[in-house]
Amino acid sequence: MTQVIDFQTDPSNYRHWRVEYHGETANLFMDVDEAGGLFPGYELKLNSYDLGVDIELADVVQRMRFEHPEVKVVVMQSAKDKVFCAGANIRMLGGASHAHKVNFCKFTNETRNTFEAAEADSGQLYMAAIKGACAGGGYELALACNHIMLTNDSTSSVALPEVPLLAVLPGTGGLTRVTDKRKVRRDLADVFCSVEEGVKGQRAVDWKLVDEVVANSKFDATVQERADEFAAANAKPSGLTGIALTPLQRSFGDGGSVIYSTVEVVIERDTRRANVTLMGPQDDAPADVDALQAQGAETYLLRLARELDDALLHLRLNEREVGLVVFRTQGDAEKLVSHETLLLENADHWLANEILKYWKRVLKRVDMTSRSLVALVEHGSCFAGVLAELLWSVDRSYMMLEEFEGDNRPLAAITLSQSNFGSYPMGNDLTRLQTRFLGEPEAVEGLSQQIGEALDAEAAEELGLITYAFDDIDWEDEVRLFMEERASFSPDAMTGLEANLRFAGPETMETRIFGRLTAWQNWIFQRPNAVGPEGALQRYGTGKRGEYNMERV
Amino acid sequence: MTQVIDFQTDPSNYRHWRVEYHGETANLFMDVDEAGGLFPGYELKLNSYDLGVDIELADVVQRMRFEHPEVKVVVMQSAKDKVFCAGANIRMLGGASHAHKVNFCKFTNETRNTFEAAEADSGQLYMAAIKGACAGGGYELALACNHIMLTNDSTSSVALPEVPLLAVLPGTGGLTRVTDKRKVRRDLADVFCSVEEGVKGQRAVDWKLVDEVVANSKFDATVQERADEFAAANAKPSGLTGIALTPLQRSFGDGGSVIYSTVEVVIERDTRRANVTLMGPQDDAPADVDALQAQGAETYLLRLARELDDALLHLRLNEREVGLVVFRTQGDAEKLVSHETLLLENADHWLANEILKYWKRVLKRVDMTSRSLVALVEHGSCFAGVLAELLWSVDRSYMMLEEFEGDNRPLAAITLSQSNFGSYPMGNDLTRLQTRFLGEPEAVEGLSQQIGEALDAEAAEELGLITYAFDDIDWEDEVRLFMEERASFSPDAMTGLEANLRFAGPETMETRIFGRLTAWQNWIFQRPNAVGPEGALQRYGTGKRGEYNMERV
Repeated sequence: MTQVIDFQTDPSNYRHWRVEYHGETANLFMDVDEAGGLFPGYELKLNSYDLGVDIELADVVQRMRFEHPEVKVVVMQSAKDKVFCAGANIRMLGGASHAHKVNFCKFTNETRNTFEAAEADSGQLYMAAIKGACAGGGYELALACNHIMLTNDSTSSVALPEVPLLAVLPGTGGLTRVTDKRKVRRDLADVFCSVEEGVKGQRAVDWKLVDEVVANSKFDATVQERADEFAAANAKPSGLTGIALTPLQRSFGDGGSVIYSTVEVVIERDTRRANVTLMGPQDDAPADVDALQAQGAETYLLRLARELDDALLHLRLNEREVGLVVFRTQGDAEKLVSHETLLLENADHWLANEILKYWKRVLKRVDMTSRSLVALVEHGSCFAGVLAELLWSVDRSYMMLEEFEGDNRPLAAITLSQSNFGSYPMGNDLTRLQTRFLGEPEAVEGLSQQIGEALDAEAAEELGLITYAFDDIDWEDEVRLFMEERASFSPDAMTGLEANLRFAGPETMETRIFGRLTAWQNWIFQRPNAVGPEGALQRYGTGKRGEYNMERV
Repeated sequence: MTQVIDFQTDPSNYRHWRVEYHGETANLFMDVDEAGGLFPGYELKLNSYDLGVDIELADVVQRMRFEHPEVKVVVMQSAKDKVFCAGANIRMLGGASHAHKVNFCKFTNETRNTFEAAEADSGQLYMAAIKGACAGGGYELALACNHIMLTNDSTSSVALPEVPLLAVLPGTGGLTRVTDKRKVRRDLADVFCSVEEGVKGQRAVDWKLVDEVVANSKFDATVQERADEFAAANAKPSGLTGIALTPLQRSFGDGGSVIYSTVEVVIERDTRRANVTLMGPQDDAPADVDALQAQGAETYLLRLARELDDALLHLRLNEREVGLVVFRTQGDAEKLVSHETLLLENADHWLANEILKYWKRVLKRVDMTSRSLVALVEHGSCFAGVLAELLWSVDRSYMMLEEFEGDNRPLAAITLSQSNFGSYPMGNDLTRLQTRFLGEPEAVEGLSQQIGEALDAEAAEELGLITYAFDDIDWEDEVRLFMEERASFSPDAMTGLEANLRFAGPETMETRIFGRLTAWQNWIFQRPNAVGPEGALQRYGTGKRGEYNMERV
């Protein structure tokens, strides 16, 4: 599995999904092409999915928000008979490396979260209309929707058969959404997760696994009715006109570099580093929201978000030996802040809102990126407002102190904006500053007095905004030593360390999915009972059950 | 490592710890006997510890509460020169099976938690007085104390060198307590966890790693002064007289059975089951708290708690192929409730309080036991009050419905008491009923109207207190089918499933330690970078660093 995986697609290239738009509602059909697997060696039978199917789905959800703001309700359904979705393709999982499995699950989890974010942040509600078998990852798709309807016939059911069938967990949020979102009683959840054939009919409602069960003959009409009701009850303004998410400007260079219009990724293979430089805006901010909408996908902050998002996914899946991602910025901080200010001051405008909320998702993607992250605040940089968030998303930051010989760029400074105090909450629902200063809420209060000030390295260090400030004499050595040290550590230990240090404070359903559930699933993905030659995942489909070591740990 | 591990000890058998009592303060000295390892093959150098050392420590903490209620402050220190504690013994870890590592970490975690519980529940504050190197598990011991003092000399420091040195995590609560208890800024935590030699002097205070740093010459006097201050400020009543925790009545029988005075453990090896039966009280409750104190360790609810606690630990460490623990009770529910009522009505009496708080810990130990748990509510049983908690700690419960032919025991009933609404919170700080009915807080409210009623199977099922009720015709088949099904599943998948389903709702520092941190550590404990032949854990002490696969997952 060494081919480059591309996260960019568009409807003209979809092989697995189809959307029909009907004004305020959209019908999203899952119709997986069996022959359309991302890798050879498996067929995507029964609407089972692999990463390629999920890349299209992520694109659907993203375009729904930017290209179709008129949509208030998305009805997810199957275009196949007798099956809603059979979940992640087992042969794909059985053949995939541990790293691919983990990254696949992370991306699918992030995509499921966007369903819920679409309603919370944008008033686009997802509902699942289930006809036929809905199992494993299929039911996890439904769980991520905020309303689940099940038809009442002998073949339609919801199930999480992973434990009995495959000896792994329903790891794409399944267990967490069952207990924490749908609040299924834990002993019933235990029963549900033990029953290969799942639960159907009224019992699925009684156990809170679905919201309603409807007679087959009335199902389509009732689904339509419910969608119309949700749309009518929705407070989102009607009749909005979207923008087109035009293809990214992107070129792949030698040695793994990727050059976008505002983002540059340079890989240093020998040291296992990726240098990611974000460029400030060339142009002034649009004059107003009309100008913003006219710029569409070309507007600077949207372009930057899309390019950074793509770069992160590219690094995660295609550059797996990169252990350290080095973030730099270069550009005009004031101009950057003016772009962000337009969005903040017009946050009630749909597109301004969507761009801000997209940054919230992209910054969460940074938080969740399982590589060591460092920010270098160099002279000429523009860590301001939204880009300042990167300083508290990374594991450490280094800032240039005072003048450097031969460097005539403007002295390094950090500028806080109002957005740093609430626009981009982390998965734990706190801002990055609140998380950073968990023990000193008064420090966050104090920082809010510094909005708009260009804070030099001395001030930034004093305020705790960065880890270290070094002058011309020490900078190069200190940064080099850090990077060399980091490269010498076990990547697994760093993954575990970062997963624990990055998310202090309260846990939410989201952090529990990525922390507790994912960690246990990753553990199981290492255990012979699941992935060994006689493990259940390898034996699936052979007619033989897995053979287990029965020792409990 | 197949020898039977005994969790019972007493001061006359300690090899590693020594306590000096001085009225309201106690000095707890760690003085590990190098030759006193639980298993052959390693020496416990530099105050490093293994499970045997921790079994003694758990005994110290337990006796401090029951035998020495006069103590308000416990000062933990080292009896060795130049070293406070070097943490878990690496050679022991390197040689241990995965299951032993995991169980060792769980028990040490539970023991660390008892330090904090001692202050919260009983007013016994633990402070750490650190002279010399305090590394890894040594610093985790200190982190579990609520006040950390560090002497200011060139050899004294605190450190979490696991990641750079061993490619594993500081997994005994270290990472979680650094971020969530001490609220160390995450980038500073990142630096701290990367530095083998740790942090000393004023920086340790500045980074919040310790509470105070004191000049070596004044250290002992200042520690004493601080202990006296804490004792003086302590609201706990003075001059309490403890009770003796006399040896358990316990005998080991054939085939792995263990018989206590109130608990019976019978192992069915072929089906990998442990049958644990708890007997109700023979005698009436003590008349008052004076009678309670006079009974001491013999009083029924304390005896039962100690015996159940020992049985759980025995099963965890010594019966690792047992996959299912079946809880039954037999006895007089009214009498049981009267014993508990005495404690609840006198919760301001130190001993009544200690017994209740001990049950809180024992029930958490049940929650944390990584085996499938089921309760069988049979005729003649006494699932009432504290024992009813077991019904919501287990993964499922089955209850006998109506009369069974030839069974003339009293019909199965469940009795709620006031204690079920707050006396025994889970690690997530909710009661088991609140966790069970997370989506229906009104159900808990309704249940509080049923206190004292003997609820039969029909009522219990209707109220959601049990999973299933079956009559004489179905009982045997249904219970047998469940047990057979359970025994066919992968133990690893069950471990992950239960770790996710059992702890719905909010997370606390405690649940984060057992959920997030432990899960990641268990994952790392499977990874070749740590435990493979060229991994850091195996190579430790050979002069060669671990060799790592540098792929990130």
